[in-house]
Amino acid sequence: MNGDILENLHNAIRIIPDFPKKGISFKDITTLLKEGDLFAEAIDYMYDHYRNKSIDLIAAIEARGFVLGAALAYKLNVGFIPIRKPGKLPGATISESYQLEYGEDRLEIHEGAISAENKVLLVDDLLATGGSAQAACKLIEKLNGNVIGIGFLIELAFLNGRDKLKKYDIHTLISYKDE
Amino acid sequence: MNGDILENLHNAIRIIPDFPKKGISFKDITTLLKEGDLFAEAIDYMYDHYRNKSIDLIAAIEARGFVLGAALAYKLNVGFIPIRKPGKLPGATISESYQLEYGEDRLEIHEGAISAENKVLLVDDLLATGGSAQAACKLIEKLNGNVIGIGFLIELAFLNGRDKLKKYDIHTLISYKDE
Repeated sequence: MNGDILENLHNAIRIIPDFPKKGISFKDITTLLKEGDLFAEAIDYMYDHYRNKSIDLIAAIEARGFVLGAALAYKLNVGFIPIRKPGKLPGATISESYQLEYGEDRLEIHEGAISAENKVLLVDDLLATGGSAQAACKLIEKLNGNVIGIGFLIELAFLNGRDKLKKYDIHTLISYKDE
Repeated sequence: MNGDILENLHNAIRIIPDFPKKGISFKDITTLLKEGDLFAEAIDYMYDHYRNKSIDLIAAIEARGFVLGAALAYKLNVGFIPIRKPGKLPGATISESYQLEYGEDRLEIHEGAISAENKVLLVDDLLATGGSAQAACKLIEKLNGNVIGIGFLIELAFLNGRDKLKKYDIHTLISYKDE
């Protein structure tokens, strides 16, 4: 049963060659999100995994992470914390940089977003090299929150992103073994 | 009862002076979103308004619109369509420009996002001058979708954004009469 759901979700993902640049086989989840039943099944599947984990807050990474994270926060009846690119959050923030293939990027979170010892689930659409998720976890921990897990819709297993995230409980619905 | 909910939502919004620039009194919804009960009440309030309108899809504007739009799409059990800044969507897109105070910006939607005659609800966090919502509606209509309404959490009534959106049914939860 669960296998059928995951296969349906997998089949709904569209592969876009050479996006955002030559050689990258992009996993486009918009073809899944636009099917109401599949979108709900993806959220329900994540919900079933996390429903008994005493989560206080969901944090999600801009922008595709917001889609999954917000729906799951609503279903879990917990608050939603946006983690954003620099300059987007209006209040006082802390930030954390992470490496890209060339150069680096930064993520920010509002200073008052999390109370000490809050149990925070991080949600994003895709685990690739793990750099942005690692930076997001550091932001949560700088605010004294406890990262109780990271939920991804998709994992690109061949990029070994889990190596950066060994201390966290990771849950993914769909895994690509090779490019 | 409904008045109490709306007052609670209103009270949870934080005002940030001079963001993103001098003279603008920014309405920060992150202080509302982080309270699970308030976030759920906002989504439920929108849901009650739209539950009987035979909606096929929700389209939402990057990035804050994704938070509200995705949770509402999940609750309504309909698909979610992202409307994004240029270059973010991986597939073939159509785009529409709109005026900013200085210069212009563009929004994009995937070509295959909507089927003809689909009833589409547009969701965003904030109605200001109405430019981005108007552009988003044009994108939906270019794909032969029917915009059956636009739902905002907040309306800055003093900016008269409704003037650009007269042909659409608009629903807002919180209205600011002056800056």
